[in-house]
Amino acid sequence: MNIVIAGAGAMGSRFGIMLKQAGENVILVDGWQQHIDEINQNGLKANFNGEEITEFIPAYNQNDLSEVEFSADLVILFTKAMQLDNMLQSLDNMLGKDTIVLCLLNGIGHEDVIKKYVDYDNILLGNTMWTAGMEGPGKVTLFGNGSIDLQNLGEGKEDMAQNIADVLTNADLNARVSQDILTSIYRKACVNGTMNGLCTILDSNMADFGDTSSANTIIKKIVSEFLAVARVENVFLDEEAVIEQINGCFNRETIGLHHPSMYQDLVINNRLTEIDYINGAIVRKGKEYGIETPYCEFLTLLIHSKEEIVGAK
Amino acid sequence: MNIVIAGAGAMGSRFGIMLKQAGENVILVDGWQQHIDEINQNGLKANFNGEEITEFIPAYNQNDLSEVEFSADLVILFTKAMQLDNMLQSLDNMLGKDTIVLCLLNGIGHEDVIKKYVDYDNILLGNTMWTAGMEGPGKVTLFGNGSIDLQNLGEGKEDMAQNIADVLTNADLNARVSQDILTSIYRKACVNGTMNGLCTILDSNMADFGDTSSANTIIKKIVSEFLAVARVENVFLDEEAVIEQINGCFNRETIGLHHPSMYQDLVINNRLTEIDYINGAIVRKGKEYGIETPYCEFLTLLIHSKEEIVGAK
Repeated sequence: MNIVIAGAGAMGSRFGIMLKQAGENVILVDGWQQHIDEINQNGLKANFNGEEITEFIPAYNQNDLSEVEFSADLVILFTKAMQLDNMLQSLDNMLGKDTIVLCLLNGIGHEDVIKKYVDYDNILLGNTMWTAGMEGPGKVTLFGNGSIDLQNLGEGKEDMAQNIADVLTNADLNARVSQDILTSIYRKACVNGTMNGLCTILDSNMADFGDTSSANTIIKKIVSEFLAVARVENVFLDEEAVIEQINGCFNRETIGLHHPSMYQDLVINNRLTEIDYINGAIVRKGKEYGIETPYCEFLTLLIHSKEEIVGAK
Repeated sequence: MNIVIAGAGAMGSRFGIMLKQAGENVILVDGWQQHIDEINQNGLKANFNGEEITEFIPAYNQNDLSEVEFSADLVILFTKAMQLDNMLQSLDNMLGKDTIVLCLLNGIGHEDVIKKYVDYDNILLGNTMWTAGMEGPGKVTLFGNGSIDLQNLGEGKEDMAQNIADVLTNADLNARVSQDILTSIYRKACVNGTMNGLCTILDSNMADFGDTSSANTIIKKIVSEFLAVARVENVFLDEEAVIEQINGCFNRETIGLHHPSMYQDLVINNRLTEIDYINGAIVRKGKEYGIETPYCEFLTLLIHSKEEIVGAK
């Protein structure tokens, strides 16, 4: 199967390596030239559960695809949310009427962008529990186990979804077709919609924020806005269970001492954040549905202010 | 007149010096022992519009007043808002039935605390445009000009207010009796309720925050909550004028490059903030009046989280 990994960061590299090892015809597309050059010259290197491996996979800069001939059967999207539109534009000449697009981005509402480029019936939304780390150009660290839930957006497209799940599972990526992918996506978005923005604006790790006496009130307010919006889309989440999952982030024995990815992006690396696709998406949907979302709105505005103050790019 | 300056920081020291110079019988009460010792041993020193002066004014620690006999005609309150209750408790044996209390604290709603200690009719609320800087224990910097607006809370107490204004004006403090002190107090609270919390949480000076594209939206939301609460108290502020005043803080030629006092307190000095008496007061009043105040509430919660994260005291 001709597979494009669109966004070949740590997670994209994991998927690329595992699909290539399973015999698929994979190419990587990314915007980081140094990473691309390294992969093309010396292969994509990984510490794969303790073993040093090298996989040779063609890598391309997304701005330099005009002469690449590749007819994609499957595009797996791993870009940052705000790069999604540009990436799909770059890939346009690889997309045919049968190309399937699997979106594994964090955040919500990406299908609105994707459907500008491929038929709505060919879109799969997914949610992955795999992890991966970037060591440097051409080098990633891949430890532990994971899984993927995915679901067809188009009615009657269950077979297509199962087919893609089989391809992924054949590469040991443990995919299964879900009946309620939006539930998983919203649940994950609730975690990201609290931990990411709050720890970033408070310059805090997750545990230290969780220990504050205001944390619970703030989290409840934000989660209630996510859940109100989700309900309009017939996605019903249990508030208590969601909050319990969020509270799991505060555990100092596991991930509590970490800073969430948005903190890494903005505070450490001065990069623009994905806030518009997490809390900002709730604000947009809330306006459409007539639901007040002041906490998500204020947090989105604060993060955008912070981006401008630190000159994020 | 027997005058207690309750809170002898920079501003309290200015008032103490100027009232003493005018012949009033002044004592200073504060909680900073080193400052008190310095004043008692070497006098209160000031660079007063360029001239180095020393004024000998008795200074006391508020925790050590039990043997001090002083029958206060006037108490001028300059504490931090969260120290107000404790200060009044310490001063209790100096307060008689005729003692007048002039409150010059930032923030709103302090009369609810003060009226526990003196008759409501003896309370004056004020707003001062004077400035002052603390150089170190026993030493302040006093430049420029200022004025005071004050008003009686009790009905028919205009003469009392005028009398105190005369005492202050006699000391060149330029006081006048106002007919709408709550308007001034709310207007000032709108400036503090935006600049203080926002620049603190965003780790920004005022101009850099003001330059961000989210600033105007955030400010409008917060100001609208202040104004809605004020309206219930028959205080009517012009939203555009308030926002114009706030925008004045962004001017890099004047004060824009400064950080507001809450930033100094929390970020620089790891001290607890006055947020409960600014945005937090709007939240409390909003609950009482049935008005939604999500922006003030979220900002108050964020500042409290930040206080706990940095271990502010």
